[in-house]
Amino acid sequence: MIIVMQAKASAPDIEGVVHRIEDLGLKPHISRGEFRTIIGAIGDESLLRPEFFAGLSGVESVMPIMKPYKLASRDFHAEDTILDIGGAKIGGDSIGVCAGPCSIESEQQLREAAIGCRKAGAILLRGGAFKPRTSPYAFQGMGEEGLKLLQAIGAEVGLPTVTEVVDVRDLELVARYADVLQVGARNMQNFRLLAELGRLDKPIFLKRNPAATIEELLMSAEYILSEGNRKVILCERGVRGFEKSTRYTLDLSAVPNIQGVSHLPIFVDPSHATGRRELVVPMALAAIAAGAQGVMVEVHAHPEKAMSDGPQQLTPDAFAVMMRELAPIALAIGRHLQTPKA
Amino acid sequence: MIIVMQAKASAPDIEGVVHRIEDLGLKPHISRGEFRTIIGAIGDESLLRPEFFAGLSGVESVMPIMKPYKLASRDFHAEDTILDIGGAKIGGDSIGVCAGPCSIESEQQLREAAIGCRKAGAILLRGGAFKPRTSPYAFQGMGEEGLKLLQAIGAEVGLPTVTEVVDVRDLELVARYADVLQVGARNMQNFRLLAELGRLDKPIFLKRNPAATIEELLMSAEYILSEGNRKVILCERGVRGFEKSTRYTLDLSAVPNIQGVSHLPIFVDPSHATGRRELVVPMALAAIAAGAQGVMVEVHAHPEKAMSDGPQQLTPDAFAVMMRELAPIALAIGRHLQTPKA
Amino acid sequence: MIIVMQAKASAPDIEGVVHRIEDLGLKPHISRGEFRTIIGAIGDESLLRPEFFAGLSGVESVMPIMKPYKLASRDFHAEDTILDIGGAKIGGDSIGVCAGPCSIESEQQLREAAIGCRKAGAILLRGGAFKPRTSPYAFQGMGEEGLKLLQAIGAEVGLPTVTEVVDVRDLELVARYADVLQVGARNMQNFRLLAELGRLDKPIFLKRNPAATIEELLMSAEYILSEGNRKVILCERGVRGFEKSTRYTLDLSAVPNIQGVSHLPIFVDPSHATGRRELVVPMALAAIAAGAQGVMVEVHAHPEKAMSDGPQQLTPDAFAVMMRELAPIALAIGRHLQTPKA
Amino acid sequence: MIIVMQAKASAPDIEGVVHRIEDLGLKPHISRGEFRTIIGAIGDESLLRPEFFAGLSGVESVMPIMKPYKLASRDFHAEDTILDIGGAKIGGDSIGVCAGPCSIESEQQLREAAIGCRKAGAILLRGGAFKPRTSPYAFQGMGEEGLKLLQAIGAEVGLPTVTEVVDVRDLELVARYADVLQVGARNMQNFRLLAELGRLDKPIFLKRNPAATIEELLMSAEYILSEGNRKVILCERGVRGFEKSTRYTLDLSAVPNIQGVSHLPIFVDPSHATGRRELVVPMALAAIAAGAQGVMVEVHAHPEKAMSDGPQQLTPDAFAVMMRELAPIALAIGRHLQTPKA
Repeated sequence: MIIVMQAKASAPDIEGVVHRIEDLGLKPHISRGEFRTIIGAIGDESLLRPEFFAGLSGVESVMPIMKPYKLASRDFHAEDTILDIGGAKIGGDSIGVCAGPCSIESEQQLREAAIGCRKAGAILLRGGAFKPRTSPYAFQGMGEEGLKLLQAIGAEVGLPTVTEVVDVRDLELVARYADVLQVGARNMQNFRLLAELGRLDKPIFLKRNPAATIEELLMSAEYILSEGNRKVILCERGVRGFEKSTRYTLDLSAVPNIQGVSHLPIFVDPSHATGRRELVVPMALAAIAAGAQGVMVEVHAHPEKAMSDGPQQLTPDAFAVMMRELAPIALAIGRHLQTPKA
Repeated sequence: MIIVMQAKASAPDIEGVVHRIEDLGLKPHISRGEFRTIIGAIGDESLLRPEFFAGLSGVESVMPIMKPYKLASRDFHAEDTILDIGGAKIGGDSIGVCAGPCSIESEQQLREAAIGCRKAGAILLRGGAFKPRTSPYAFQGMGEEGLKLLQAIGAEVGLPTVTEVVDVRDLELVARYADVLQVGARNMQNFRLLAELGRLDKPIFLKRNPAATIEELLMSAEYILSEGNRKVILCERGVRGFEKSTRYTLDLSAVPNIQGVSHLPIFVDPSHATGRRELVVPMALAAIAAGAQGVMVEVHAHPEKAMSDGPQQLTPDAFAVMMRELAPIALAIGRHLQTPKA
Repeated sequence: MIIVMQAKASAPDIEGVVHRIEDLGLKPHISRGEFRTIIGAIGDESLLRPEFFAGLSGVESVMPIMKPYKLASRDFHAEDTILDIGGAKIGGDSIGVCAGPCSIESEQQLREAAIGCRKAGAILLRGGAFKPRTSPYAFQGMGEEGLKLLQAIGAEVGLPTVTEVVDVRDLELVARYADVLQVGARNMQNFRLLAELGRLDKPIFLKRNPAATIEELLMSAEYILSEGNRKVILCERGVRGFEKSTRYTLDLSAVPNIQGVSHLPIFVDPSHATGRRELVVPMALAAIAAGAQGVMVEVHAHPEKAMSDGPQQLTPDAFAVMMRELAPIALAIGRHLQTPKA
Repeated sequence: MIIVMQAKASAPDIEGVVHRIEDLGLKPHISRGEFRTIIGAIGDESLLRPEFFAGLSGVESVMPIMKPYKLASRDFHAEDTILDIGGAKIGGDSIGVCAGPCSIESEQQLREAAIGCRKAGAILLRGGAFKPRTSPYAFQGMGEEGLKLLQAIGAEVGLPTVTEVVDVRDLELVARYADVLQVGARNMQNFRLLAELGRLDKPIFLKRNPAATIEELLMSAEYILSEGNRKVILCERGVRGFEKSTRYTLDLSAVPNIQGVSHLPIFVDPSHATGRRELVVPMALAAIAAGAQGVMVEVHAHPEKAMSDGPQQLTPDAFAVMMRELAPIALAIGRHLQTPKA
């Protein structure tokens, strides 16, 4: 960590910083420049945080050198993490697609979507049973009944399942029925939920909050990893921006950006990011071209009747077209699109 | 709700929309313009949501006319809501200040801060016992022990207390010790937590998430209100912006903006918004000038030793200076700064 | 245009709006709902702007139905605009790459880059002679001498040239030497410059300002188009966001979004958007997968010695690798990568 | 400047950085930590820019220590700059209000507004003659005729005048008629215009671009200052944010933030920031409470007939109310509101 002193910092100010560094068990390293003094703290920076120094007298700014996350970083684990989910490989050079309806609405609705997704080549089936909705008056999901349908139809079509857990009290319930537990964007910094998920032996699908920096996303992953669960899949789903014609601004550069610093698999959800069906396919293709290890896409046989997020859901036919275009893009960058075994 | 059809929308497209409106129990009202057809849905718009139409064939855009929240709106409740918290009035023309340390760290630390806050004129004492921290390796708060200290010292100095609840499972515990329960910015859309808080008979201090629009903040308040708890205080604490020299961008125009559409009291937290001590006082004064019904400010007798957010905490002396400047600003806009009874 | 009246709007308020609509030569269309009155203005909305009504007594909100641009819209011109620049086709299903150094620094530097770009398959050569720099103390470009080099070396390698005009007074000078005139992101709303460019018979490469909505970008294009020049190429180059690890946030969804409403060709500049070399190639590939009709990429034989933007410039070798990956992605989505004729 | 090397940087990588520092005439200072090597460049950092190092092999990140502006900084000029504009003092502890219509529309319209502004206590009269409009089809201002009216009516009511220059070619024309030249938000990085304004002997009113950081605003001021003109007034007028109910997000914390690092006077324009009349007064009061040295407010006797920005213009009566509330707020923070001499 580097502490830059103000031009007018006094000798006691400098001593104050030096003592604080020594108290913390590190070695100070003073460098007096023409205009100001700079003090380095040599040693294990993971023991430090900027706020240990930012409040001291005479300090202008504090610059961390090391990243604040460890287990999520490539420094700690150089190779790509590759997860095995019911035979499907997630991460590394494999590309996989997770698809299904936004909400589980009925047995028939889920089955129609699931069959379409499986047929077109999805390897994971998604469906929401507990829905975090902006309005208290909106459909909140089918709850446990939805979980049962998801488990049954996942087994029927032969796909592992992904569903969101919105309440820490539901964790055991959801874990009983689903193969992968999703943390929604609004819960990315529900740290208690993250810690509990860290104690499970199930893969966690962790979505980026629309106001979160990449570093904050990785810190949330660190909460899960540091409790022992190393099976984390990250997902970019759009950040909050000023453009009014899309729901969020999909930050695709997060994909190679994250892959440079972390070994965890990274997916992209173009459905929630754009909120508009006609933008979903181009952005799914772009995500794969950018190097994402997968996309999560919403599919509904009758989007115009969907109980949530209809405008962004693809029909099974549109989804099948997307899948046919994805495969050659994966090949173009030296990867391959995984599909379910027949 | 107004549904704008595409220029190329067909007669069956228009019929589709009309049928959907009728199915939902409202009356369609068709207006054929020179360039496109516009369809109004006349009746109780609270039954509708844009997604009921956005996915239909031939629809270009859907514009809600009514606000999506009801109980939080001035249409529903024209007069300012005024809460009584242990004798302190919150809302309307009263201005109140909530102050105290970011985290409760020890009995002595809390007592020193509390005495300073009370003496300078705060009417509510804050202090975090459960801390939501970006890093799993950072201080997470004293937990129940902290709650006990808060209750004891609040009683000692004669101030009602405010503290954050971060986990729905802790709700009863926190409610046992504190007078006001705070929902932190990261939990603003933890809808299950909101619903549970809606079943309590305690005031809720609801902070705006840095990525939330004003409408989304009011929808989160609606979750609490719609469960029966009408004691909600809103708090602006900075939105996520691109400026790098402050932690967040304090959106002060949210204050009069919210007051135009909602009857709920609105506070401002300049400490978390700016993250820098030297900006806290000017922004607290500005908040009151903008019409806020209160500010929440962090105070620590030794900020340089604070276990969290040291750079943004005021000393009791700096806080006392702020309070002396606040009073005439309140008067200038025809309000008055409430102080504790002697 | 739809004018929504406040719940408490009086009969004279409604009359006021009706008169204003009639004064403007349009027909009012009143619809009295259960909760409020809505007034439509039927006729040529291009005569209206929301501010004609937003200030009137009793008006709650004003919603335009038509887009505020005309010549740039698909309603006006349904087919993709395809430009011919020295034999290269820009727009429609052709994909083209524009490459070259950020700044022209010397004859040798430009030649090395130009030869590399041409060899790898670029069809347009870029190079800055007038550089808009944040700091007055930074290298401001070679000026006319740079333009001469660009013209000479463009001719030498057989590529049409693109360069930025930063001052309306330089317009003739720049037009004398270059084939395509670029409007930089910071000048996107320099309306006088746009109007002058609208009177030229040269293609204009118009970059999106980092704070501009898509509608604002198209309004800036409209300034050029409405003066008679129909040769406009749009370029997405990143919007201002909160993420600190990239310079801007590349908004790739702008590509299909714009293509839905406008016939103009759209390029993407991943170099300026990300500011980091290792992100340029993935984002260039993603741009093509998303449907962009081209990318603009910075190439320098010795980026570590570049006088501007070194960290984001590709070496000719890295650029050649990128071009080899682009071609199959173009094919995957049914397009083809144009390369210069041998 | 501090250069942080990658964990895997080689000895030649480190040498490369050292040589580059020496080539630039500074002294390298190497500090080998447990995990990585850090190199300081000791000497005059104004000779450096991060890009001189960011492209070198083995470099992880580059951190400037000094601010990139000099003449605009308090390090260079510790005392507040105070300008004298026709007897009015701008800067320091004086607070002044600039008011007038958005656009000059006619002699009568300008006179009515000017009389109202003067009477209520404004010390500067604003009015736009050249209007930068998003749409080419919108009213573009009265041009030179407007400038003549502004000069005549300014003299008539006894107020110095402020007007925007939108085209570098109009500079002499505008300077002939107006006392203060305004650079609009969209031109904040029109560097050629800034440089020309730097050669004038007139005060420049420089508005912050909605996508500009505070550092970028100060760099634009530096363009003017470095050409010799030291009379610069800064103005915060809202940044681009995600909130849809206001035009921009007013960043009031920019006021004390800028005052900490720069000696230049800082104004706030709540009219353009919010775009809504009912928010203008609260935000003007808040701006003064936050320490702004003035506000710029739009006033029109008949806002509902204004040719631009009607919804945000105050009537003279509303403006007078605002002025009466401003004075005690100025006093509350130890300043005083200047008014014209009788």
